[in-house]
Formats: sequence, structure tokens, C-alpha cells
Amino acid sequence: MRNYSHKILIESIKRLLRRGDTTHLVKIVNKTHVADLAEAFRSLSLSHQRKLFDMISDIEQKGVLFSELDENTFMEFVEKMDLNLVVEVLDHMPTDDVADLVGRLPEDKSASILEKMKKEGSEEVEGLLRYRDDTAGGIMVPDFIALREDITSREAIESLQKEHMDVEMPFYLYVVDEYGKLVGVSSLRQLVVVPPDTTLKDFMITDVIAVKTDVDQEDVAKIVARYDILAVPVVDEYGKLVGIVTVDDVIDIIKKEATEDILKMAGAGGEFVETQSVVRSTRIRLPWLFASCVGGIIAFIIIGRFEESLNKFVYLAAFIPVIMGMGGNIGTQSSTIVVRGLATGRLNVRDIWSVVFKELSIGLILGIVYGALIGVAAQIRYSTVALAISVGVALICSMSIAALLGSMVPMLFARINIDPAVATGPFVTTAIDIISVFFYFTIASTLLGI
Amino acid sequence: MRNYSHKILIESIKRLLRRGDTTHLVKIVNKTHVADLAEAFRSLSLSHQRKLFDMISDIEQKGVLFSELDENTFMEFVEKMDLNLVVEVLDHMPTDDVADLVGRLPEDKSASILEKMKKEGSEEVEGLLRYRDDTAGGIMVPDFIALREDITSREAIESLQKEHMDVEMPFYLYVVDEYGKLVGVSSLRQLVVVPPDTTLKDFMITDVIAVKTDVDQEDVAKIVARYDILAVPVVDEYGKLVGIVTVDDVIDIIKKEATEDILKMAGAGGEFVETQSVVRSTRIRLPWLFASCVGGIIAFIIIGRFEESLNKFVYLAAFIPVIMGMGGNIGTQSSTIVVRGLATGRLNVRDIWSVVFKELSIGLILGIVYGALIGVAAQIRYSTVALAISVGVALICSMSIAALLGSMVPMLFARINIDPAVATGPFVTTAIDIISVFFYFTIASTLLGI
Repeated sequence: MRNYSHKILIESIKRLLRRGDTTHLVKIVNKTHVADLAEAFRSLSLSHQRKLFDMISDIEQKGVLFSELDENTFMEFVEKMDLNLVVEVLDHMPTDDVADLVGRLPEDKSASILEKMKKEGSEEVEGLLRYRDDTAGGIMVPDFIALREDITSREAIESLQKEHMDVEMPFYLYVVDEYGKLVGVSSLRQLVVVPPDTTLKDFMITDVIAVKTDVDQEDVAKIVARYDILAVPVVDEYGKLVGIVTVDDVIDIIKKEATEDILKMAGAGGEFVETQSVVRSTRIRLPWLFASCVGGIIAFIIIGRFEESLNKFVYLAAFIPVIMGMGGNIGTQSSTIVVRGLATGRLNVRDIWSVVFKELSIGLILGIVYGALIGVAAQIRYSTVALAISVGVALICSMSIAALLGSMVPMLFARINIDPAVATGPFVTTAIDIISVFFYFTIASTLLGI
Repeated sequence: MRNYSHKILIESIKRLLRRGDTTHLVKIVNKTHVADLAEAFRSLSLSHQRKLFDMISDIEQKGVLFSELDENTFMEFVEKMDLNLVVEVLDHMPTDDVADLVGRLPEDKSASILEKMKKEGSEEVEGLLRYRDDTAGGIMVPDFIALREDITSREAIESLQKEHMDVEMPFYLYVVDEYGKLVGVSSLRQLVVVPPDTTLKDFMITDVIAVKTDVDQEDVAKIVARYDILAVPVVDEYGKLVGIVTVDDVIDIIKKEATEDILKMAGAGGEFVETQSVVRSTRIRLPWLFASCVGGIIAFIIIGRFEESLNKFVYLAAFIPVIMGMGGNIGTQSSTIVVRGLATGRLNVRDIWSVVFKELSIGLILGIVYGALIGVAAQIRYSTVALAISVGVALICSMSIAALLGSMVPMLFARINIDPAVATGPFVTTAIDIISVFFYFTIASTLLGI
């Protein structure tokens, strides 16, 4: 059975590369699963990557390695590679992966690659390139079994034995009419069970779960996950079957979308940045921090206007952190729950008011609990009832408003089709900071009679 | 083709329930996919849920509905249901789902259910209940095809036609030795391609990807995703094949784990809380806010000790929000990148120092950029060079330390096997708040000569 310790694999490869021990390397490379190899690949230098790549004897393995590389690694890697070898590898890869890779290259490069590729493959790839990357059309593969509705189950079995031995996932047998329109689905099992002379249209399932080419990949993933299917057929605007999206691609989409949401909410870009350089990471993270910097400047302008209050009661300053912190935290809780709820389909935009009301209630309850607590702490420390009440009331306001904004803003963004994950982070956090500070000083100045 | 508008479905069902229009309801219920029905189910009241459930005519559909319900809904739902009906439904469900549901019930209830269930099913369920919920053993199904290594491909095909027609996912044919030990894997396609007299052991793949029963479900999901397989076999401590984990369950795990990580990082509990009551949600979110409340109290004690500085330079208070906010935000970015990187396998605990060093560099660069910016803003507003420098330097310190802590803490937690997502949120945020405030006042008091 397989050994999953990548640490050992990566270290052996590195050691052998340093030593230049090609014999052992070739052995390791060709007995290691290509998915593990791809992982090791990422932590190697470019020149070591090239060496390792040349040692892979199976051209299809080379292809799998290509598809497993992330965008930047792949771009760097093929830049100095012989174009003919690139083309040879691409010719042995599934067309959806080829379209993915070729779509990322500069146009002149991709054009010359497509020209050199085998005609059948390049036509399929060009077909896929017409669709947007993140739609069903962009991620589908043309590897499916389509049978005509008017043939019998015996004819179907015969045709399967002759023609479709190389299909990647032969679980669903799609049934089409004379124009290629998807009209039903069946399975190997059903073919064997029915009498051999039954025509497909008499026993196929007509209620087929399918998606159009322009459906967003996230929705495709949701459908595959929801209905527990291994592949979903993709049809064009006329209902013609043009491809399938398989469950392994769906898994990648689900993981990627979750990662993107998490990173976006933290204002750390959409794609995974850890493999990127310091300069690039800095650039990605700079803008969100700018939003919070502007928020900070507004906060200091606001506090500046309460200079008089601060002069009289200097310890007002001591409660700024707790009021900002508690507001910010409950706001993050609310917005996280809503953004993730929307992404997983547990929450729906139409429920906006019930969700916001619920969050507001929670914010109010928690505000009262912690407002009382901090109020008592303030009273103990400074023995000024008006201050204690100010702090308590400010905390209640800050936490309620934070829960309100934290739940409402992502809902509103989703409603006007702006990605809630991207917008929520900077907007909500900054707004809560400013509002909390403003309320706190206004309440305190009033209650302290300044 | 299917219509995905759940809004319309849910509203029709609600309307018909209010009207008591059973005829139409029965029609809708029995032609709607059970996954869609489960979604509608969640937004109904308990009494309406019961009505709808009774209208489902197919007992297996009832079973699927059971497995689709979330924990709380299911518990409420079966509480007042006739035990015999519950048992009848469970008897028609896949054993892994039954084990999942029965495992959640109070012990007396689950015992009486298992007693009433058909012997074969209840034994399988009890078998599964021995394993922890979140391990390969807890999520596997016993529905697999195992063939002896010494039979020929012809015998294998015959046995498949006779025996295994009801297996859920007949893609992989596992090969076992005389003791049931997993020794290889093959596929339907290979069976057909080789000469009929070849024994399985001569053409099976021996390098099988498999997991032990005690492997964490997250690792099982990673393996299925990594190797693009549709199911992974599960073996016991002796290597005996005891079940498989299928890709549809893996998708659920990946989604659930991502949701859990996101919510935990925001201190909003592990399970999805939106469907829970206000009281329950409040209780789940209270503890994390307590950590941040304690942090706030510490911050006000610290600021209190700098009362003298504040008395002399009251506008010191004005910069508390920006220093806390910027530190908090960059800390969140760092910890989010690390937590998600660890979860997806893009980062590894052994890389701790290179990751931390990189984050520290980013924190330092961004700290210098924004320190300069805010320093200039402070100079413009208050024309006090020492103050401007204090604010700038404090921001650089705060942002560097935040990036350092944000990346190091989750790495350290992961190393000592504490879930980094759970620990990072409260710990990092609170620590950064306190440290930022402390550094700011210390630097400012020194530079302003107090």
C-alpha cells in the first residue's frame, strides 16, 4: 500500500537531485503517483523541476503533472521549454485541462501551440476556449457516452464494447435524439437488466439533471454535490449535449471557492498567495489595509473633535480598544456566518430581513451582557457612574450595529450580485470601527455633561 | 430538464400546506428530487414537516430525506415519530447514514431502534458505530465489490452478473486474498480487455490507494481529491477490506470542513449556526467574545497606566483606533492564509520558519508604508514631530508583530495538534490588540519625554 509521507518523498528527491543520482531518481519518479510528484515539484527550483520532468518516461504522466501545477509554476516552466515537447504533452492530456493551460498563456504562444497540436485535439480545445473559464462550458470534457434514443439495449451494449472503451467515466449513458439533443440518461446496469429488444427511450430516465454551458462553475459544483452524482451533462443553447463536468473537477472547484471566500474575507486576495513572492503578496494585501487606514484616519478626526471631553475625562481613551474590539469581533462573526451561509446555500438572499433581525437580536443580547460587564469594570476602576453607563451603553450600541451591518451588508451585496466575500471584509470592519468610536464619544460627552 | 428555482418550490409547498391542498402536494412531493425536498423541508415548521413527510410514498425517498436533514432538525423530527416507522425507514437506508443518525440519538432510543431493525442492517450499523464519527471507519459504507485474487476474469464477470447488481458504485473491483486482505484493484474495463482465463492476480493493480479505519475524515477527503478517485477502500488493522468511502461523501466532508474552519476562525462555533435559535447562537458566540472582552479590560488597564502621558498629550487617544485596526487586519490576513494553507495542504507545519519569516517581511514592508502615511497625517493634524514619529513607529511595530503572531500561532497550534482554526481567532486577535496598545503608549511616552 502507498506511503503518504510527502516529507520523506520531497527530501529524498532533493537529496538525489543534489547528488545528481539519476538512476535512483528515475526509479523514484516513475513509481511515484503523479499527484504526489506534483506536490514535490512545487517545492523545487526551476532547474530541478526541469531535470525531474525529463525523467518522467510516460508522456501521459507528464500531462497530468502539467495540469497539477499551479498557474505561476506552469507559466515559468513552459516559458523556456521546447514548444514541440509542450505540444506533444498537451496532445496526451484531457482537453479541458489543455484549454485551461493554453488559455493562460500569452496569445501568440497559445496560437502557435494550437497550430502545432493534432487537429482533433486543437479543435476541441478551441471549442472549450470559447467559454468563460469559470463556467460549465469552460470546465467540461467532451468525453461522454451518447446513445441514440431509438436503438435497443442490445445495440447499445454492442456499441459500448466496440467504441467507448476509452471514455474516462463510463457510468452514465446519455441518450440523445437525432439532433444530438439530450433527452434522457441510463446506466450500464439498466442496459443489462431490461430485455435486449427494448429501445432506450422506453426505459431511460427523462428527468435529467443538466446544466447549460454558461452556468457558473460554483453552481455546477452545487448541483453535483446536491444530487450526489458523478458527472453532470452540459448542453448548449439548443439543448444539444456538448460535454460533461466530472466529480473530480467539482471537488477542485469546491475547495478553490472555499479558499477564495476565506481569503477574500480577510482581504488577502482571491487566489492562494502563500506560494507567491513577498512583493506580490504585499501588493495583494495592500488595498484592503488602505481601506482600514482611511477608516483609522476618519476615526482620529472624529476623536479629535472630542478633544474637550478627553481633556476633562482623560480615561475615556482607555475604553476605545474594548469598544472597537467587541464591535469588530461580533461584526466578523455575523458577516462570516452570512457569507458562508450564502456560499453553501444554507442562507438565501430572500431571507435577508429574518437573518438581519436575528443577528440584531443576538448583537443586542450579547451587547447587554458585555455592556454590563465592562460597565461594572469601569465603575470599579474609575468610580464614575456616568462613565460606567456611557461605556456600557456605547458597547450595546456598537455590538448591535456591528451585528446589523455584518449581516446586512453581505446580504445586500449578494442581492446586487457583488461577491459578498470580497466586499464584506474592508467595508464592514472599517464602518464598524468608525461608527463605534463616534457613538462612544457622543454618548459619553452627553452623559458626562460636556 | 429540471428547474432549480427552490424559491418557487418552497413557496408552492408552503401555500399548498396552508390551503391543505393534499392532492397537489402529493403530486409535487413525489415528482420533486428528494435533495430539493430536503432543502424545502428545512424552512418548514415541525408540523408541516410531518405532513410533508407522510406524503412521500417511496420509503427509500423517506430515507434519503432523513440523511439530508441536519442534526437538530432530525432530532426534533424523530422525537415524536412512531418508532416502528423510524425503523422501517432506517432499514431502507445506506448503513453509513443510519449509523450517523442513530449515533446522534440518546442511548436508550438508539438501543431500541437497533433492536427493532433487521438483523443484517443493525449488525452493520453497530459495526460502524464502533468507529469514531469523523474517521474513515465512521463514514465508510460496506457496499463494495471484492473478488478473490485466484479467480479468472471470466469467473469474475459471471459473479458480477449474479451477485453485485445492487452495489452503489461498481467502478472499482477490489481484489482480496483468502483472508479478505486487500491486495489489488481492477476495473470492469480491464476484466473485459484481458483474455478470459487470466487470473485477477495477474493483471490487477497492486499499488492500491487505501486508508485505515482510524484515518481522520479530512485526510480521507484529501486522498480522494488528490488522486482523483471515486472511492477509497478502507482496511482494518490487519489489512482486511471492510468498506469504502465514496466521492459524494467526500464532497460533503470538504464543504463541511471548510465551513467549520471559516466559522471557527470568526469565533462563531464549529457547526453552521444560522439554522439554530437566537439563544443557541448567542451561547455559541459568547465565549470568543469573552476572550476579546478580557483583552479589552487588559487594554484599558494598560492605557490607565499611561494616564500621565494622556493628560499631557490628549490627542494620543486619537490614534488608538488606527493602530489597533491596522494591526488586527494584517494579523487576520496572516492567520487566515496560514490556517487555510494548512487545511488545503498548500502549507506544511515543517515550513514554519520560512512562512513566518515571509509574513514578518510583509508585515514590516506594509508597516513602513502605512506608518509613513499615518505619521504624515499625524504631523499635518497636530504638528508635533515626536507624536508623528511615535505613531509611525508604533504602527510599524504593531503590524510586524501582528503578521508574526498571525502566522506563527496557527503553525505552533498545528504542530501540537490543536486545531489552528479554533485557537487562532480569539488568541491572535486579543494578543495583537493588547500588544499594539502597549507598544504605542510605551513608544509615545518615551519619544514625547514623559
